[in-house]
Amino acid sequence: MRLSDRIDLAVTHAVRIGQAHPAPSRLSAALHYAVTPGGARIRPTILLSVAMACGDDRPALSDAAAAALEVIHCASLVHDDLPCFDDADTRRGKPAVHRAFGQPIAVLTGDSLIVMGFQVLARAAHLAPDRAMALIDVLATRTGMPFGICAGQGWEGEAEIDLAAYHRAKTGALFIAATQMGAIAAGQDGAPWAELGDRIGEAFQVADDLRDALCDDAELGKPAGQDDLHGRPNAVAQLGIHGAVARFDDVLSAAISSIPACPGEAALAQMVRTYADRLVPAVARTAIPGE
Amino acid sequence: MRLSDRIDLAVTHAVRIGQAHPAPSRLSAALHYAVTPGGARIRPTILLSVAMACGDDRPALSDAAAAALEVIHCASLVHDDLPCFDDADTRRGKPAVHRAFGQPIAVLTGDSLIVMGFQVLARAAHLAPDRAMALIDVLATRTGMPFGICAGQGWEGEAEIDLAAYHRAKTGALFIAATQMGAIAAGQDGAPWAELGDRIGEAFQVADDLRDALCDDAELGKPAGQDDLHGRPNAVAQLGIHGAVARFDDVLSAAISSIPACPGEAALAQMVRTYADRLVPAVARTAIPGE
Repeated sequence: MRLSDRIDLAVTHAVRIGQAHPAPSRLSAALHYAVTPGGARIRPTILLSVAMACGDDRPALSDAAAAALEVIHCASLVHDDLPCFDDADTRRGKPAVHRAFGQPIAVLTGDSLIVMGFQVLARAAHLAPDRAMALIDVLATRTGMPFGICAGQGWEGEAEIDLAAYHRAKTGALFIAATQMGAIAAGQDGAPWAELGDRIGEAFQVADDLRDALCDDAELGKPAGQDDLHGRPNAVAQLGIHGAVARFDDVLSAAISSIPACPGEAALAQMVRTYADRLVPAVARTAIPGE
Repeated sequence: MRLSDRIDLAVTHAVRIGQAHPAPSRLSAALHYAVTPGGARIRPTILLSVAMACGDDRPALSDAAAAALEVIHCASLVHDDLPCFDDADTRRGKPAVHRAFGQPIAVLTGDSLIVMGFQVLARAAHLAPDRAMALIDVLATRTGMPFGICAGQGWEGEAEIDLAAYHRAKTGALFIAATQMGAIAAGQDGAPWAELGDRIGEAFQVADDLRDALCDDAELGKPAGQDDLHGRPNAVAQLGIHGAVARFDDVLSAAISSIPACPGEAALAQMVRTYADRLVPAVARTAIPGE
């Protein structure tokens, strides 16, 4: 089965928990709306790729981990889009959840998806209890305070920002979770895999800055030019397009060098490079150096 | 140590996770603000009381469970108070989190506290891994969709409400979690303890309706008369004050009858009665029958 199919199946399975029982229909619909159709599903793709590089001896647990990570990522998108944060009209090419269902349902959708992430792992725990508990610990650490995406968003409300802590929490956290959870799901220690996630997160942030500067709303499926609009620190403003592309290449090479020894090391390196290159808009590599 | 001291210590310990590391200071302050000083701490008190009735052979795990339940309850209060829900100015006698810190921090505070609930349990898992995983499963079930407090809040956005599912999710869910988690933390099966939590939740809801109708803002520490104002179904409107008190007494008796056989059964029954009676305003029992 293709990775994307594994992920879609696992995510769909997750949002169906308890579906035979009475449930508020609009919130149920909003949960499904928030997780489908998926975006690039990059975090669970990395997670499963690492799990496979490590042998993937409990594929159902890897799938649960991938779904857990993806629904928490979707939760963060729903809450980030709220009027009190980005006030985004669109996400993944359709109206944001709060535009389609209203703010109360959007808040509850995010809350429910966060809970679902942990529930999916608890339900899969019988497959390998020790691994499941380690997965829950990593997912919580990279979602909450002070190391997770909640902390990352929280830094944006500060007068003085610790930039390293901000970037690591805001963008890096769920990539670190992805690589560590992939390894843990396959029975390996998660710690040596943190650097790969951290560097992929950094590369992803640079690629995101390039897309935000070079693509239009339709290509992004969300409003473009937001970094400039909100005056956010970003690689294109700091380094120019050429410099940002060079930075992306450097970080990606460092990411690949950091891959711990494992049976599928070469294939994983190839996958990371192929996947990451797709994130950089072609126009960035043809832009005139130094502009 | 008194139960209230155990709970305060456990909750304070929970919000200090990772505090030696750089963290956004306003979000850190808001987490602390949202959980202290506590309200009645009724859910963790029930949890620890059940754990003690069952022997409480892993008190540190019981404490973690109590803290996890309480921080999730606090998360729900923070999000319920948001302008898109109750738009409450005050909570526990002080400005609501979104009034004190703004909406973005209030959303993140709720999110972070939800995550913290699961993180606290994951961190305590080494004490008894099987119990910890069961605790996470129960907590997730009673927090998310379709059986948890998220579902309860979601029902309020529906044109047609399944009243039984609504009440069980909105008020009952965390009481069911309290009794089940107390039993699980002490090594017992949680299932036989669901009815006690369900009935305590029902009694609590009736007492809450009485307080909302009979107490003023200062006594409640939050705006009174909200049920009437929002036209919510409530026991006082349906049964009158006298009828609501009679209903409370009936439900409480049924709750006590449902306590499963355990070493501390008699003491637990006494505690439930004493604690619950304090929830009904004295004036309700002196009101003229039939008014």
